Amino acid sequence: MGPTRARIAIDAMGGDHAPAEIVAGALRAQEELGIEALLVGDPDQIQAYLKQHNSSAHLEIIPSEGTIEMNEEPLGALKRKPKASINVAMDLVKQKRADAVVSAGHSGAAMAAALLRLGRLRGIDRPAIGAVLPTLVAGKPVLILDVGANVDCRPKFLEQFAQMGTIYSQYVLGVSTPKVGLLNIGEEPCKGNDQAVRTHQMLQDNPKIPFVGNAEGRDVLSGQFDVIVCDGFVGNILLKFAEAVGEVALQILREELPQGLNGKLGVTLLKPNLKRIKQRMDHAEHGGGLLLGVDGVCIISHGSSQAPSIFNAVRLAKEAVDHQVLDRIQSCYGRKTAPASEGE
Amino acid sequence: MGPTRARIAIDAMGGDHAPAEIVAGALRAQEELGIEALLVGDPDQIQAYLKQHNSSAHLEIIPSEGTIEMNEEPLGALKRKPKASINVAMDLVKQKRADAVVSAGHSGAAMAAALLRLGRLRGIDRPAIGAVLPTLVAGKPVLILDVGANVDCRPKFLEQFAQMGTIYSQYVLGVSTPKVGLLNIGEEPCKGNDQAVRTHQMLQDNPKIPFVGNAEGRDVLSGQFDVIVCDGFVGNILLKFAEAVGEVALQILREELPQGLNGKLGVTLLKPNLKRIKQRMDHAEHGGGLLLGVDGVCIISHGSSQAPSIFNAVRLAKEAVDHQVLDRIQSCYGRKTAPASEGE
Repeated sequence: MGPTRARIAIDAMGGDHAPAEIVAGALRAQEELGIEALLVGDPDQIQAYLKQHNSSAHLEIIPSEGTIEMNEEPLGALKRKPKASINVAMDLVKQKRADAVVSAGHSGAAMAAALLRLGRLRGIDRPAIGAVLPTLVAGKPVLILDVGANVDCRPKFLEQFAQMGTIYSQYVLGVSTPKVGLLNIGEEPCKGNDQAVRTHQMLQDNPKIPFVGNAEGRDVLSGQFDVIVCDGFVGNILLKFAEAVGEVALQILREELPQGLNGKLGVTLLKPNLKRIKQRMDHAEHGGGLLLGVDGVCIISHGSSQAPSIFNAVRLAKEAVDHQVLDRIQSCYGRKTAPASEGE
Repeated sequence: MGPTRARIAIDAMGGDHAPAEIVAGALRAQEELGIEALLVGDPDQIQAYLKQHNSSAHLEIIPSEGTIEMNEEPLGALKRKPKASINVAMDLVKQKRADAVVSAGHSGAAMAAALLRLGRLRGIDRPAIGAVLPTLVAGKPVLILDVGANVDCRPKFLEQFAQMGTIYSQYVLGVSTPKVGLLNIGEEPCKGNDQAVRTHQMLQDNPKIPFVGNAEGRDVLSGQFDVIVCDGFVGNILLKFAEAVGEVALQILREELPQGLNGKLGVTLLKPNLKRIKQRMDHAEHGGGLLLGVDGVCIISHGSSQAPSIFNAVRLAKEAVDHQVLDRIQSCYGRKTAPASEGE
């Protein structure tokens, strides 16, 4: 718990189920997490939702005009629509009126708005999106980054991802010495493409990164690693595959478990256990990706997010704020680079 | 069924469970699939196994000396050990005494031996390893290639993978017009890294490839695609992740389902249904990867393969032989390139 209530700007207009599900998630988060929600969006639509649900909750509404559509090219659209909800939400952080942003809108636009309006942290060349996935070991999640911000990466970028991931794992996930791995096709340092071989060497040589070696595809969910770094091309494919495969497994369960008379009875008996299984396999529980490396806490949720995902995204934002993740990343690079060579 | 019995050379000495499980798989394959198994390995060890199991089956044994160990550098080891089982098995194909090779040994060594002893097919710059995975749609598997032969790929290589995958899907998997996709991070042609954007254009322009567009991570197991191409770095990570994730799901089931009194009872009632679920999620059913693009049918199985995996690998080899996959790939490129510019 942080000393003050975290103020979270929530993009009420972004996502497939905006604004209804976004507002519902925000309401629940304000009630249960002790945060202060700033809802950014069309006041009429938000008020109409609150009225319809007889909500007496006090939610601060910050008016915005329009939103970035999924088919729009982010940079142009952000400039054409300075009052779009994602721009207004980022400005709240820039103006120190909010501590974090949560958006389920156009993820490219959210990332671009964060870069344009908040800027990068000193020492970080490329921000990365981190995703937290559950592993085989209950209560021991793994942070994977980058899962989509940078399709082409230089080894130096991956080294920075590893550094940011280490800090996030330590301070938010509470792992004292996180095991950091490099996603690769074999265990040996010589394995992989040119990027992987060079990155392996850099991670090995960096005393601030608790690097334990290469992580193969089969190791990602094993619980052996706390942080796994990769470029955004591989990471995005892996994340989307992981999300879908949970659904594939649940689908197989739904098809096969209730078969036959014993099946129906068995499923009835197992209802609470099946609910826990669904929770462990379901990606909606994870909230979204954290944009690490920009000068503000930004959570990028799925476009398909409904209220529970938004609630979890706000929780993720609150944790990053409470644990001062940005300051810790910044001070890490502040100590490393002398003032004169800042941003090198 | 092919016109003649396919002759499959099986590397009896390769893999974690060699030779016992390899011989057991080979015996079953010869019995059930109507193939002729040529077991390559140490005659004493193989005979001892057959004697111990009172097998009266006639299995041809081709003697070899030694094997390539997992920690050996493939090229050097293959040269130092010309009579190693994988070298002898490849030579059988070269000498037309066998139609195909199956090995669960050092996969890098198997690939190198195939390249050195059999050579590439005309028109193919880089052979690829293809893996067949089950999808959400029962009976509609997806072929993914490359899953590990080439960590760095040029767009031209990926175009060749798409061409070979199309032929394999048509003639072995029986899909008249396979839907071919390019693994990428978004649907739009402009998405992805430089390699992906250029490959998308080449696939789009090639009239021989039934290209339907980009496949995202979430689409891999959806059943929407019959063939998905990617470089061996991404493909290997994805394949190993896919194999592990099935085990993760089964592990979650094992932990959560029997909890509580109702849990134990429910699990008892659901025993047959759970067995079917295990079968659908278990990767051992898939047999192994097919090395496409060398002048011989080669199946590269997991090092951890036991008898059922070897059986499935031999079945895969038989299907590729029966359906004349090599001739079809060759004639495709033969028609394309004039004799004078062969191998361009």
